[in-house]
Amino acid sequence: MGPVRAAPKTARTAPQQDRSRATRRRLLEAAVACLAEYGWAGSTVAVVAERAGVSRGAAQHHFPTREDLFTAAVEYVAEERSSALRALVPAGPAHRRAAVEGIVALYTGPLFRAALHLWVAASDEDQLRPRVTELEARVGRESHRIAVELLGADESVPGVRETVQGLLDMARGLGLATLLTDDARRRERVVAEWARILDGVLG
Amino acid sequence: MGPVRAAPKTARTAPQQDRSRATRRRLLEAAVACLAEYGWAGSTVAVVAERAGVSRGAAQHHFPTREDLFTAAVEYVAEERSSALRALVPAGPAHRRAAVEGIVALYTGPLFRAALHLWVAASDEDQLRPRVTELEARVGRESHRIAVELLGADESVPGVRETVQGLLDMARGLGLATLLTDDARRRERVVAEWARILDGVLG
Repeated sequence: MGPVRAAPKTARTAPQQDRSRATRRRLLEAAVACLAEYGWAGSTVAVVAERAGVSRGAAQHHFPTREDLFTAAVEYVAEERSSALRALVPAGPAHRRAAVEGIVALYTGPLFRAALHLWVAASDEDQLRPRVTELEARVGRESHRIAVELLGADESVPGVRETVQGLLDMARGLGLATLLTDDARRRERVVAEWARILDGVLG
Repeated sequence: MGPVRAAPKTARTAPQQDRSRATRRRLLEAAVACLAEYGWAGSTVAVVAERAGVSRGAAQHHFPTREDLFTAAVEYVAEERSSALRALVPAGPAHRRAAVEGIVALYTGPLFRAALHLWVAASDEDQLRPRVTELEARVGRESHRIAVELLGADESVPGVRETVQGLLDMARGLGLATLLTDDARRRERVVAEWARILDGVLG
């Protein structure tokens, strides 16, 4: 640990850290894909490790339990999506339709499907429930912040907070409707109409 | 089958039919309770029969397969709820807040929880998916009809159909939020605000 060994050690560990981060990311992405595709019952650490091309030992080094792996996975992908949404969608009252479309898009596709499997599994499993509930609260708060920003909504006005919450509930419900059938065309019409209504309400 | 035997046979079979209907109803209600409580994986025909206090043979006489039992169960309870809602909630523009509350109530509680388990299971199981998709479409159409009636909405006005659909999506999303946490107070505020918004939009 003395100064003499510091330089070579750093030089050696930096690529190791990169590899470790890359392995972690591969595991998280594979976990979400498995959850969306096979559900909770079919998504074991072994299945995820194989899909990620990572040894089971390495997977368990990163995530000691199955619960660790899956809550981390849903959180990681939710954060990635949120950042992407912030970067892509223009914010403010002039872009409300695009904002509503972007927010609804957060709740369709494989991430929402994976999260839904995790929620339903957690509702029956005492070991999983507290962690998923806490995760869901955190992701919910972050989605709310993004929605307020993208819509250019003023939450100091009475009712605006509940209006934005209702929109996020609607987005979640629209996501749930896509679970069994691809209803993209219906969704598009609902989003267009409610973007118009929201625009009137938010001023 | 001649007229001589018709009278006594009818007298004998009427109570049998009553018993058969009662058994069927007990099985359907037990199936929904099991699905809400244990999820799809834990809800076998044997578990449901035991909860209903019915022999496994009798259960299989009424419902030859597990899929038969569970799709019939969710449909039966959805119909019961719809009828109760129609009977209880006053309809028309003067009662919009009560209508929105009643509609949202359709998506919270054990029936929605049971339906959600069925949807998520169906999304992964090829044998179950077509039946659940068809059931969901039927229940969805019926919920839409009830919502239009209770809100006193005029669907010949452009956008009104999508407005009502969006409200039902929001109700579904609010139901999903209750899966992990009891957020009745938040839900109440969202419902109050969106009932106000809807009232303005529907005129």
